[in-house]
Amino acid sequence: MGNFEEVLEKAYQESYLPFIEVLQSHPQIKVSLHYSGVLYDWLEKTHPDLLERVAKMVVLGQIEPLTGAYYEPILPFIPDSDKIGQIESFSLRLQERFGRRPRGMWLAERVWEPDLPKPLAQAGIDYTFIDDIHFKAAGLREEELLGYYLTEEEGYLLKLFPISRKLRYLIPFAPKVQEVIDYLRSLATPSGERLIVLGDDGEKFGLWPETYEWVYQNGWLNDFFTALEENRDWIRMWSSEEWMRENESLGRVYLPTSAYQEMAEWALPAKSIPLYEELITRFKNGGELEWFEGFLRGGFHRNFLVKYPEANLMHKRMLRVSEKIARLSDEHGGLLMDEAKRLLYQAQCNCAYWHGIFGGLYLPHLRRAVYNRLIEAELITDELSHTKAHWLDKEIADFDRDGNPEILIDSPVINLYLAPHRGGSLFELDCRKRGLNLLDVLTRREEGYHREIPSLKEEETQLETKSIHERIKTKEENLEECLIFDRYHRASLIDHFLPPQTTLREFSQLEYEELGDFISEPYAHTMNREGNSFSVVLVRTGKVKIQGVDLPLLLKKRLKLVEGEALVEIGYELLNLSSMPIEALFGFEFNLSPQIRGGEGPGESKDIDLLKMEDKESGLRVYFRLEQPGSLWQFPIFTVSQSEKGFERILQANNLFFHWHISFRPNELWKTNLTIEIANAYSF
Amino acid sequence: MGNFEEVLEKAYQESYLPFIEVLQSHPQIKVSLHYSGVLYDWLEKTHPDLLERVAKMVVLGQIEPLTGAYYEPILPFIPDSDKIGQIESFSLRLQERFGRRPRGMWLAERVWEPDLPKPLAQAGIDYTFIDDIHFKAAGLREEELLGYYLTEEEGYLLKLFPISRKLRYLIPFAPKVQEVIDYLRSLATPSGERLIVLGDDGEKFGLWPETYEWVYQNGWLNDFFTALEENRDWIRMWSSEEWMRENESLGRVYLPTSAYQEMAEWALPAKSIPLYEELITRFKNGGELEWFEGFLRGGFHRNFLVKYPEANLMHKRMLRVSEKIARLSDEHGGLLMDEAKRLLYQAQCNCAYWHGIFGGLYLPHLRRAVYNRLIEAELITDELSHTKAHWLDKEIADFDRDGNPEILIDSPVINLYLAPHRGGSLFELDCRKRGLNLLDVLTRREEGYHREIPSLKEEETQLETKSIHERIKTKEENLEECLIFDRYHRASLIDHFLPPQTTLREFSQLEYEELGDFISEPYAHTMNREGNSFSVVLVRTGKVKIQGVDLPLLLKKRLKLVEGEALVEIGYELLNLSSMPIEALFGFEFNLSPQIRGGEGPGESKDIDLLKMEDKESGLRVYFRLEQPGSLWQFPIFTVSQSEKGFERILQANNLFFHWHISFRPNELWKTNLTIEIANAYSF
Repeated sequence: MGNFEEVLEKAYQESYLPFIEVLQSHPQIKVSLHYSGVLYDWLEKTHPDLLERVAKMVVLGQIEPLTGAYYEPILPFIPDSDKIGQIESFSLRLQERFGRRPRGMWLAERVWEPDLPKPLAQAGIDYTFIDDIHFKAAGLREEELLGYYLTEEEGYLLKLFPISRKLRYLIPFAPKVQEVIDYLRSLATPSGERLIVLGDDGEKFGLWPETYEWVYQNGWLNDFFTALEENRDWIRMWSSEEWMRENESLGRVYLPTSAYQEMAEWALPAKSIPLYEELITRFKNGGELEWFEGFLRGGFHRNFLVKYPEANLMHKRMLRVSEKIARLSDEHGGLLMDEAKRLLYQAQCNCAYWHGIFGGLYLPHLRRAVYNRLIEAELITDELSHTKAHWLDKEIADFDRDGNPEILIDSPVINLYLAPHRGGSLFELDCRKRGLNLLDVLTRREEGYHREIPSLKEEETQLETKSIHERIKTKEENLEECLIFDRYHRASLIDHFLPPQTTLREFSQLEYEELGDFISEPYAHTMNREGNSFSVVLVRTGKVKIQGVDLPLLLKKRLKLVEGEALVEIGYELLNLSSMPIEALFGFEFNLSPQIRGGEGPGESKDIDLLKMEDKESGLRVYFRLEQPGSLWQFPIFTVSQSEKGFERILQANNLFFHWHISFRPNELWKTNLTIEIANAYSF
Repeated sequence: MGNFEEVLEKAYQESYLPFIEVLQSHPQIKVSLHYSGVLYDWLEKTHPDLLERVAKMVVLGQIEPLTGAYYEPILPFIPDSDKIGQIESFSLRLQERFGRRPRGMWLAERVWEPDLPKPLAQAGIDYTFIDDIHFKAAGLREEELLGYYLTEEEGYLLKLFPISRKLRYLIPFAPKVQEVIDYLRSLATPSGERLIVLGDDGEKFGLWPETYEWVYQNGWLNDFFTALEENRDWIRMWSSEEWMRENESLGRVYLPTSAYQEMAEWALPAKSIPLYEELITRFKNGGELEWFEGFLRGGFHRNFLVKYPEANLMHKRMLRVSEKIARLSDEHGGLLMDEAKRLLYQAQCNCAYWHGIFGGLYLPHLRRAVYNRLIEAELITDELSHTKAHWLDKEIADFDRDGNPEILIDSPVINLYLAPHRGGSLFELDCRKRGLNLLDVLTRREEGYHREIPSLKEEETQLETKSIHERIKTKEENLEECLIFDRYHRASLIDHFLPPQTTLREFSQLEYEELGDFISEPYAHTMNREGNSFSVVLVRTGKVKIQGVDLPLLLKKRLKLVEGEALVEIGYELLNLSSMPIEALFGFEFNLSPQIRGGEGPGESKDIDLLKMEDKESGLRVYFRLEQPGSLWQFPIFTVSQSEKGFERILQANNLFFHWHISFRPNELWKTNLTIEIANAYSF
């Protein structure tokens, strides 16, 4: 969800289309096929001929369509009601096209938790496919995985086919097709009661680096299918349902929480990754990995939400919208609610909620798509809940589930989310009618793989095997310079006190001294409604270190919203509570979504009282107006992350630091005001 | 649940009472105290003075009572509605006694799954305690576990306190109390922001072998509490709620499915246990276990239900009763339904559903208690569902969730459960009015620990440390002779064809040749209702091997029940479909619950037409009447299992093998009839 049109088209041309073409020329080869709902919708719009082709192959029994949760959520990340809604809506879609409702599903990212059988069975699912490593984690051995198993939750039954990792690595990467055939031969028995399952990404066939040439131009896939046909006296291709009709299960089993091994590793805290890698390497080098791998388990997939607080904020935002929809569903049905659900389901697409070998959370356009759908879905529910055109709602709740309350202000124009306990900062500012969160940024964090960068050459480093998990190349020059890691969450309205001589370079490179304690520390908060406006006051009595002495200072910031206006008025008051003069650079920091640019661009501006920023894609403009002219430092925040192509630098935020050189005596008060106005906030 | 009165009384005298006495003499020592509901009920009945004493200590703030699921179920084993019902009913109970509803709970066996926060929060739970190993499995390190964490499911929040394994091993086993103090000293900081939590079984203090002498007579516990008091300038005792009031959480976390390390090991298939033990030993010997243990994970606790099919049958029986109660709860409230729920909750008590260092599933009196509560609870629901006094119900459903249908026949007097696909066998026969399953037996299986037995001496083998997990001694002589492992599930109505010269010894020692294929193979089934009676016919055309040749044979068995009667009529017909004569011992096997004894006792009886068996405890009698006098082999089935005291032999079933020497020509039919009558079936 949110992927670029050209990426989808390239995948279609180099993978989805040629795969089906080769498959169609081998009518004896059977596959179970799953298109994610995102891709399915796109194909329906862009290449409906491919779906018609598939439909014919379904009729001929060559393709068994699989359903799934519509927009590929990681199922344990979303509420049970949404799990069921996502699966049922996609099954219905496939039933319309293929004439029957699929009973098997593809589990996004093969992320498993043992309570899944209940909602899956409730959504009409009979079977799915899971990595062999999940079974090994339950103590089963490779040779016990040649068939399918039964599991249950509260008595709800589900059939599980183990996916062979050996096949996932051999196909299509074995230098010779015969190697795959030889491996199959090693498993075959005269009675033929053994089943081996390959389940993998279609993109491996053409879209992954160099695979187009390998799989199609050099004919690997055609050769492989031919070899399977030539050996049909002992290799039989089955659809899942044929196999289950003719074969009993291998038994019952319960699988622990599990994802494929690589994902489990990525879910570990960065500092634990080297230790886990050492463990795996040790067993691999000792030739014992196969024996012990079921016991050598990495992290837990849900911890992407801990490792990346931005993923958590997006996730809890999603839960908030899901709750609003669930609350309304009982009273309101109809098309508007259907649309709200569709948008919510789209926003649950897994990619932006985690990060591994693919960009995921690091890709701003994926996050933007998630916020866009969430904000639009929520607007539908809020408009159904309110009869007046103008309103302001507030909620104080532990939004991000960190044990502390956040302040959530909703209006039909703007949403403002504040974290009093984290420096009284602003972490979400939505322009609702445009479906845009202006503060959708990413903080820079150390990743397990960053330690590899300094030792890599800039040209491609080609490793022995072609598997994507073992290829890494640097993509850009001087990436090391971007390896700066933030000390705090890059939200907005973050209040700094710096030594007067601090430079933009020092500030942006994190080579400055923070004199205050107003960044991550708690602010007290009060709220007031006055007629058609609403104010939040955040207050902290903190300290500013001047010449080695901590001096007390009171900082009060006040945000005011007026019903129906796309405007936030912000007032700052600083009171020197000490008996000493305080001299410092004082300022507040904003981190705007990377697509929002403007002003003079990176650099320093003095004596400014107006800054214009613009989101080119939507045409939305943001005006910052300073009552008291000040200085502005503007600089980009880049992350370094890995993708299937190598390491890359990505713009994650545009940092604005409005500041003043202040010098005030004991008991002196310093004040300033700022307004943030969003223009074109209403037009779609 | 089901434990012997004298065991509870011993635990009270040697552990529960003296612990509170020592605690009361140290008013500065604070503990969070959890009694399981089973124990709580018993104390209330037997030693209410102890509870009054505890209540006073609660008022003084020395004891913080913890709630839990009432009858200590492993939470993921039971439906969400029962999780909530169990917790709420126990919390209410504690609220009545202690004046406030506890917000913290003890999690039975610390078995965790990541979806628990939702039902726990719905039941009013705010926090619980989890082993540190669970956190390490998420990639956290020992030094990050000195406080508490937050987790959530669908936004429902739960606070988790890590339990220190180091403290679990040091307390009360450290040779000198000072060792514990030294360890605490190594963690202390000037600012005192670190919390360390010990959470463990109360039975470690007095009931575990030799601990009564150690903990009380030698004064370990008193010395320990004294040492804590003497060091109160730097050690502060907190209740959980005090700590949470004054301290923020250490952050958010998600924990994978997990149990304590030992339990995870026991949940592995027996054949995988040596491999896992080797892995752990390797890291322990290398001194690296602390670093890597979070990654070195054993099996998944739910697989006790796979490892022990009897646990699965009990579990699915429990689910069936739970469903019946849930279905009725909407229409029927009131005291009868409350009683049905109470019985169901008692039947969910974890002990009988698994096996580790304690006897658990291997203890017949625990299984008996579970079946007793289930049968009684179900009788309440069935009587509410039926208006007539006499009725017969049938259901064909995949009761055990193995993918094949079972036949379940219910009446107010008798329940009969048949598995057509497993030799047309009978696996449950309940005398409902007495709450007794006559076929509650255990099949003999190889356990991971059995390999240790031959090398053990008969006298006690004292290991270095006193931890229960490292002590094993043989308890009885000649245990090796009992290490026989069954080839099939020890159900009843199992049909055997044996060579005519087979002896009882050979049969009981599994040293015989099975000529037929009627043991684990599928039977076809039909069912008929005729007026007030009901018949099930099970048919299989199988093979009997005579002089090396497989000869076809048709076996038909018919079970008939009449409404209101405690009687099962069974008819057997064998038809020789081959062109050769068949001569063999033919017979059918029953395995009765170990408490049901009678007849001549172990040995051979010839020409019998009546066998009387009796359940001494209830006075219930069972009569087997043979139309055609036959021979009977009777022998006991013993298992060898480990308990906290060592290895022990336990009677699990009384095997009855009724048989005839048959010799019949091609197309000849051989028939016989049997009735099973239960006397005293009605009196309570």
